[in-house]
This record gives sequence, C-alpha cells and structure tokens, in this order.
Amino acid sequence: MYDVVIIGSGPAGLSASIYAKRAGLKAVTLERNPMSGGQVLNTYEVDNYPGLPGINGFDLGLKFREHADKLACEFQDAAVLDVRKISAAGDRGMEAAGKEDRQAKELKAASGRHKQRDAGFVVVTDQGEIRTKTVLAAMGASHAKLGVPGEEKLTGMGVSYCATCDGAFFRDKVTAVIGGGDVAVEDAVFLARGCKKVYLIHRRDQLRAAAVLQKEVMALPNVEILWDTVAKEVKGEDQVQGLLIENVKTGKQEELLVDGVFVAVGIIPASDVLRDAADCDEKGYVIAGEDCVASTPGIFAAGDVRKKKLRQIVTAVADGANAVTSVLEYLSGMETK
Amino acid sequence: MYDVVIIGSGPAGLSASIYAKRAGLKAVTLERNPMSGGQVLNTYEVDNYPGLPGINGFDLGLKFREHADKLACEFQDAAVLDVRKISAAGDRGMEAAGKEDRQAKELKAASGRHKQRDAGFVVVTDQGEIRTKTVLAAMGASHAKLGVPGEEKLTGMGVSYCATCDGAFFRDKVTAVIGGGDVAVEDAVFLARGCKKVYLIHRRDQLRAAAVLQKEVMALPNVEILWDTVAKEVKGEDQVQGLLIENVKTGKQEELLVDGVFVAVGIIPASDVLRDAADCDEKGYVIAGEDCVASTPGIFAAGDVRKKKLRQIVTAVADGANAVTSVLEYLSGMETK
Repeated sequence: MYDVVIIGSGPAGLSASIYAKRAGLKAVTLERNPMSGGQVLNTYEVDNYPGLPGINGFDLGLKFREHADKLACEFQDAAVLDVRKISAAGDRGMEAAGKEDRQAKELKAASGRHKQRDAGFVVVTDQGEIRTKTVLAAMGASHAKLGVPGEEKLTGMGVSYCATCDGAFFRDKVTAVIGGGDVAVEDAVFLARGCKKVYLIHRRDQLRAAAVLQKEVMALPNVEILWDTVAKEVKGEDQVQGLLIENVKTGKQEELLVDGVFVAVGIIPASDVLRDAADCDEKGYVIAGEDCVASTPGIFAAGDVRKKKLRQIVTAVADGANAVTSVLEYLSGMETK
Repeated sequence: MYDVVIIGSGPAGLSASIYAKRAGLKAVTLERNPMSGGQVLNTYEVDNYPGLPGINGFDLGLKFREHADKLACEFQDAAVLDVRKISAAGDRGMEAAGKEDRQAKELKAASGRHKQRDAGFVVVTDQGEIRTKTVLAAMGASHAKLGVPGEEKLTGMGVSYCATCDGAFFRDKVTAVIGGGDVAVEDAVFLARGCKKVYLIHRRDQLRAAAVLQKEVMALPNVEILWDTVAKEVKGEDQVQGLLIENVKTGKQEELLVDGVFVAVGIIPASDVLRDAADCDEKGYVIAGEDCVASTPGIFAAGDVRKKKLRQIVTAVADGANAVTSVLEYLSGMETK
C-alpha cells in the first residue's frame, strides 16, 4: 500500500516525487512515456524557468528526472487505465469513485466514513493494480487536433504538433503554423530559423500571443501572417504537399504549397482515467484549487491537468509541492481518526 | 511611468522580473538588500527546487539574478517607504490608498473610476519617488528569531527555520523544534517521519496548535514534548551539537544532544509599506489568491508576503508568473477602457 501514487512524470509529477520523497512518503511515480519530462521534452528552448536561462527543454526534462533519481524516488513504467476507490464494505469489493456514488455513500455511511477513507484507491494499470492511500494526478495535457481531412493520415509525414521535435526536418523548406497563441507564434519564430518561408495561419484578425512574441514574429522577413484564415484540408499522398486554406471573411479558398504543417491550436487535459473518480470542468480539467485538492477526498491534481489560469513549468512545480502538502494533511487526518 | 514596479528580489520578485521582461512590460525591480535572492541566500542547501538538486542557497540566488540580468531586467537599489495611489482629481494630489478611503472614493467617483485607475501609484523610496501603473509586492517574510547565543552563528549549520525545506537533511538524527503553534507542531510531525527523535519544546504548559495537530503529534512515539521549557543557547562550533534548555517553572537547566534545531516561533511578513494600500490579514500577510490579485486594483502580491498555505521557492516563482499574468490582464483592461 503506497501513501501516494503519482500519475505522470512531467514537471508537476517530478516535483511531487521530490517533495513526497523528502517528506518520507512511500510514493511511486507512474510513467506512460519512455522519457520523463512531459511536454517540456518537446520544447526547443525554455527561458522562463528561473535559474536555468535558455535551457533546451529536453535537457530540462532530464535535469528534473535526475533530481528525482538523486533522491532515489521510485518510478514505474505503466499506463494508467482506471482509478477506483476501494470500498470499505465487508466484501472488500471495489467500486468506481464516481460522482453519483459519493453522495449516497456519505448518506449511508457517516459512521463508517473513516474506514472508507482509509481504504484508499486501486490504480489499475497495464502492468497490474497498485494500491494506494492517495492519488496525485499529474497526467498533463496533449495537443488538440485540427480535425480536417489529411491531418491524421499525414501526421508524421509532414503534419506535426511539435516544431521543436520536427522542425529540423524542414530546413530550407516551406511550412505553415496554425494557431494564434504563444505556442503558435513561438513555433513560427523557431521554424523561421531554418525554413525558407513560414506561414502563420490564424482564424482571427489578431494574435493572442504575448506582445513580445508578436513583435518578434512580425519582424521576421520570412514569416507571413495570414489573418482570418482557417485550414480546410492537408493535401498530399505520402507526404504533405499543400494546405487548402479559406479566408473566413471572404470565403475565398486557396492552396498553399507547403512541405510541413505545424498544428498549435490548443491543448487537451489527459484526465480521462480520472473522469469517473473526480469532478472535471467542461474542458476536462480536474477541478482543484491552489491546494490541488480534487473533489474526491484522497485525490489531488497538479500541473496542466488541473483547472487553473496559467500553465507553465513554474506553476507545475509549485503544484507538485502544494499537492504533496495536501496529501500529508490528508494522511494525517486518516491516522488520527 | 512604469507598467509595474516589483518590490523585492527574492524568488518571487526575480521570477516576476523575468516574466515581466518577456511579456514586454516596462518594469523595475527594487532591491532593499545588496544581494538578490531573499531568504534563499541564507539557506545552506536547497534540495527541492527541481532541476538544481542540492544547490547552495547563495548560488541559487545568484543563478536567479543572473537569469534576470541575461534578459536585461531593470533593477534599482532602493528601500520602499510607502506606496500611494495617485489621485485622479484635478489637483493631481496624492492620497494613501487606504481601506477607509476606498469606500468613500467608490461612492463619490463612480464615473471617474477608470481615470483614477489609470492614474496609478507612486512608490516612495529612500532614493526618490517612482510612478507606476501597477505594484507587484514581493517583499517576502522573515522568521522570528529566538535571540539566544549560538542561533545566528549556527544558522544553516543545524539551525533552521523551515522543516519542509531542511528536514530531509536530518534523516535518522535527533532534532528539536521550538514553538507551540501550528507551524511548530506541523514541523514536529513532519520531522518525525524521518528523524530518530524529535523534541518539541514549548514555553507553556499547553500548545496553541489546532486540536487535530496536537492529537497527532502526541500519538507519535518518537516525539517528546518538553513543556514549560525555553531554549537558552544553541551549542556547537561548526555544527549544532546540542541545545541548552531551561524549565521556566523549576529553573532547572539541561543540555539536549541534538543535531538540528528548528525554530518555529513565528513568521513576520515584510508588508509594512503596503498595509495602508492593500488589505492584509491579522498576521500581516497581503490577502490575495492564486492569481496574486490584492484587494486594491493595481496591486498584486507574490511569494512569502502573500497569504497562502505553502511558502517555498517553487511556490514563490509560480507566484511571480501568476502575478505578472494578472498585471497584464489589468493593464489590458486599462488600455481597452
């Protein structure tokens, strides 16, 4: 029985691992991916993690993991399939910690509540089941898709969601970046270093990205911003050859000849395995405040998967610490009851 | 006229400097002390800032400052004396942004409110006055001292003011916690997970801490509470070796053999210059949520000076980022009005 199972090994999960270890908790961090670091790994340059200016994202991911390894934090390669609350009932059965169940449970089991609380959770993974007193959800988030013809077929064949990872394959070629936020503009700036030409395609008439980024991208001679424009189809057979675009104001369509399409239109929280176990908002983010306490007692959410305002490495590592502090409080409550 | 004046150059202030610069804000960070880094500077070893395991606190402070310097953030040596809201009235006079004033202002100046907002603040320093649209308060906090011989000399050499930060260095050792409030008892509970033995030393015959915490600490076999007892001297040359204690009722003195002394007799937020300008709680912490928005529009609070649960480097740097994001939103609101 673990004190805490940390799901995910991005900045939030690794920070939680470090804090849990230093607090003397019996903890394991589950990794779905072969490398720790989460989205950081796919970031070309990170310049806003204080103390490590201009570090390559891959290196930062490594440093975070090395830190956890240095403290002998426990890791396990496992993809989580489900999180279930262990019932404290005599049959020792399991039940989903569903929202519907919670109220009923509370009504019927006021006296038995602390037993139920003590019973903890089973984290079901592709490697087997793990029992734990608490679950710290740090699964992060992933990139949203465009959902246009050709996108899926040509993913990895010119369609990419990570300029840092794949940009080098498009040296001296023509690429398009789709989106208008920080990531899209950062991608365009990055690609402009090596590409002959970069189209930045945005459906509105102004970018959402930070002012400094906008200024930067607009100063680049080989970046052309196409305003009020959406992608309709990625063209090509075995390799991207073009992008069908449409001006949303005029309705005019046009095919751009591009070799690569970089999609930067948003992120999706990886909260699927937890959606029956804790309340999520309409976008799928786990609802929890600064203390990272989710709606179900014993479940905590940290990092990009949590509903919050600013998703950055610094806020993820803070979440890891806050979540472990809340885990400690929760476990203390269990012990004294 | 600055977009934001950041008061303080600990982790919160430096993170805010970095984020403000990258966001293209006209910002200056005011430093009262000759070195940047805040409380971090006095920390012997920091092992919970992910990516930089086991770094010396002084070095971490330097790294944070170097990061800001690399981005050409603006700094100024100045001790802040007062923060005043600029009145938008015709006489262009200044008035304290006091709590008493605010309601009266709102009643009388509903129509002129956005002008008043635009008017900004004057930060009065020992080097002169600085005009700014917003104020980001990151003045930090300091730990109350015992004021006994050996305490100052052995700070960082076994004397610590933060169990969460330094407790892990005392695994399987004997420590003493001095204090009787929530923090002291939490520290004792935290340390008991790893330490061989923990003395909890309190000058009275009962603890001030919450009942649940008292119950918890009293149940721990490796915590011994010494009632009616005060510390008289921390013993040791280069490292803590013992603690001279005295029973205040009997006058009897005794030397405890301890490896670490955790002082938890109070934290003093450095919010003095802001107490007329924004709401603080009864302990002096500036009241602001995760978004760092204080009670007075245009004032933001980040780091240890903010009312929050967990005061750590990671939560301070997160505050810096969150506060700047809120500053940007506030300034956007000003511009679009």
